[in-house]
Amino acid sequence: MQLDQATPVQLREWEAALASEYQSLQQQSLNLDLTRGKPSTQQLTLSDALDGILAGNYKAADGTDVRNYGGLNGILEARQLGANIMQVEVDTVLAAGNSSLTLMFQAAQFALHFGLQGAASAWKNKGEVTFLCPVPGYDRHYTVCEQLGIKMVTVPMLASGPDMDKVEAMIKADANIVGLWCVPKYSNPTGVVYSDETVERIAQLGKIACPEFRVFWDNAYAVHDLVDNPPQLLDIAAACRKHGTEDSVLQFASTSKITHPGAGVAFLAASAANLKGFTAALGTTTIGPDKVNQLRHAHLLPDSAAIRQQMDKHAAIIKPRFACVLQHLDKAFGDSDLGNWEKPLGGYFISFDTQPGCAKAVVKLAAEAGVKLTPAGATFPYGQDPEDCNIRIAPTVPSVAELEQAMQVFVTCVKLASVRARL
Amino acid sequence: MQLDQATPVQLREWEAALASEYQSLQQQSLNLDLTRGKPSTQQLTLSDALDGILAGNYKAADGTDVRNYGGLNGILEARQLGANIMQVEVDTVLAAGNSSLTLMFQAAQFALHFGLQGAASAWKNKGEVTFLCPVPGYDRHYTVCEQLGIKMVTVPMLASGPDMDKVEAMIKADANIVGLWCVPKYSNPTGVVYSDETVERIAQLGKIACPEFRVFWDNAYAVHDLVDNPPQLLDIAAACRKHGTEDSVLQFASTSKITHPGAGVAFLAASAANLKGFTAALGTTTIGPDKVNQLRHAHLLPDSAAIRQQMDKHAAIIKPRFACVLQHLDKAFGDSDLGNWEKPLGGYFISFDTQPGCAKAVVKLAAEAGVKLTPAGATFPYGQDPEDCNIRIAPTVPSVAELEQAMQVFVTCVKLASVRARL
Repeated sequence: MQLDQATPVQLREWEAALASEYQSLQQQSLNLDLTRGKPSTQQLTLSDALDGILAGNYKAADGTDVRNYGGLNGILEARQLGANIMQVEVDTVLAAGNSSLTLMFQAAQFALHFGLQGAASAWKNKGEVTFLCPVPGYDRHYTVCEQLGIKMVTVPMLASGPDMDKVEAMIKADANIVGLWCVPKYSNPTGVVYSDETVERIAQLGKIACPEFRVFWDNAYAVHDLVDNPPQLLDIAAACRKHGTEDSVLQFASTSKITHPGAGVAFLAASAANLKGFTAALGTTTIGPDKVNQLRHAHLLPDSAAIRQQMDKHAAIIKPRFACVLQHLDKAFGDSDLGNWEKPLGGYFISFDTQPGCAKAVVKLAAEAGVKLTPAGATFPYGQDPEDCNIRIAPTVPSVAELEQAMQVFVTCVKLASVRARL
Repeated sequence: MQLDQATPVQLREWEAALASEYQSLQQQSLNLDLTRGKPSTQQLTLSDALDGILAGNYKAADGTDVRNYGGLNGILEARQLGANIMQVEVDTVLAAGNSSLTLMFQAAQFALHFGLQGAASAWKNKGEVTFLCPVPGYDRHYTVCEQLGIKMVTVPMLASGPDMDKVEAMIKADANIVGLWCVPKYSNPTGVVYSDETVERIAQLGKIACPEFRVFWDNAYAVHDLVDNPPQLLDIAAACRKHGTEDSVLQFASTSKITHPGAGVAFLAASAANLKGFTAALGTTTIGPDKVNQLRHAHLLPDSAAIRQQMDKHAAIIKPRFACVLQHLDKAFGDSDLGNWEKPLGGYFISFDTQPGCAKAVVKLAAEAGVKLTPAGATFPYGQDPEDCNIRIAPTVPSVAELEQAMQVFVTCVKLASVRARL
């Protein structure tokens, strides 16, 4: 199907055939959800040993009784787990509660109102401040900015990561740019892994940005590979040390898609100065994180080999789902101009671009046929996709059989919406 | 020992005798800590069944898989646990993570920056805002205000709770008073339980305060009785309903001193309007709380009877410690003018008032004899006790034998500092 070369008669014939196909799909009364990056039940079961894993021993390796109050930075073995996931030095890691989103919100909030390096460094002193948002990106990053009143400006995502020419030019032109959102490995939603050159250039932004500028390096999919020889992400902490820009990057990760998403451990890795500023503010909000759950996680995943084994089990469950989605897309659109998509080597999403102006219509059609997709526009700040083309597919929750059905609906909806947009 | 009637000669003799006694106490090289309200190891053990209590069943009563993401308000059975502790309706309760301090910080922060009832209700719109702080009180309440730039004004604590004549007069005189800190039962540190009249009057503050005013009702010791027929705190939610002021109170509690302090569940109870505003902001900071740990707690403490049994076991451990401290105080100061203190019927603290100007000296002397006390002044905003007289004693962590030693040091330090202040 090549719409650009189609005659009006052809378009009308296609529309009629697709509408009829769509109607019969509707009659299946499906109820499928491809909206969020959630592990499936099968994946959750991989970590069921967590509850009870302590076998009555509530002592951390250094003798800390994890049941009681205290320990703002988390216990050492949990910080080591974070270091193993992010491949950073353990003394740069803080282990927190169950949500890296909370850590990101707190980092932005503390930097905005209190300053990470003293009150004089608070972003609010600058008046209106701006974050650069590579698009398409992660909707919950945007809601953090929106909630805190931080302006968002978009930058295109390329196959190598954010368009660094644009990022550098914008930062040079505007001293009120205080942040850059990054999902550097298996980017949400495009699946891109930042190239070495991109990481090197990001590590040098601290030289041209205002001193309060921070890269929010959300390494959510650091170990979430779907292939045997996965792409390696350059070590940004090491790159920053080389360039003397250690304070310009805050790294985030969690066990959310490694163990139990709702009940995991989140991590912040940062320079000594940033950790000092962060914990000074954090200490006014809590006595400390859930160290019992941190110890459980350290027992379940004591070293990098254990993490690798766990992630291999996840991959074995997830891979057929990704394969199913990609097969349907290949078959339906491999020889057409109706869409473009990535073939991610890890992560949780497949990003699909329709022809301009069709994404909302596709999501609506799919919903009306019982297939829930992430709202079109969600991958852009303020929910505004200027081209109305990006759709994020999250294939992990449904079974492969369900995905077969969902993808039949999806491809039919893309075709129908695309044809109708030409009529 | 009555200092007011002592001659200079007597004072000098006392000083010499006490200094010698103090020196011999110093030679014991003690290392005891009476600083924080932490459960003892023996108390922690009461909840060791938590880890493993789910026995592989990660389903909440309504079928929710607690392992996965979601559920911002917490699972129903955890909310019921909060309702049982606070004796409120379950539909007014949100169950969160491990820290009620975090909930209080968030409530203050959300109210300040975002507004609990829409952006127009944000405290920041008023310019500088003020919290009333009954003193002596809880230092971590003050650090929340200090961190957020909220001004604090003190109100005296009476045996019936905050001095309500003053509270009402101040609120009538200042529309920028947006908050009142309360620990209504076994108040930190005085142990006072607010009288019915006080609660009734607090419930009516919403009629005279600005619409954005909120009582922060930190019911940290709701079930932490040390006697068989404990005093009953009037139900403030019911009182507010009667007076049509439901939006004026936010109630907080947690399982921190019921199960494992670092790994418990915290609760917010609030009106529908307040919960709506709170969760709207909360949803930008997290996908949801640790529901697995919530389910563990619901299993351990399924009803009010289970809570009562658990708290009786705590009381059996704590009571001898409180008795030891009180015996020492009675024996040393029962017939003197050197200090005043409360005999709390529950909670975690004994509050001791020295003669004016002696508290800092006592804490310093005790520290130099190996007994760590909460810094003098910590029970006042900005750490400033204008009379320099209040000392908070936290007797739960040391053993009774250790408390015997610590209290010997304490009374000697009080006597020595008091005498020296007259020389």
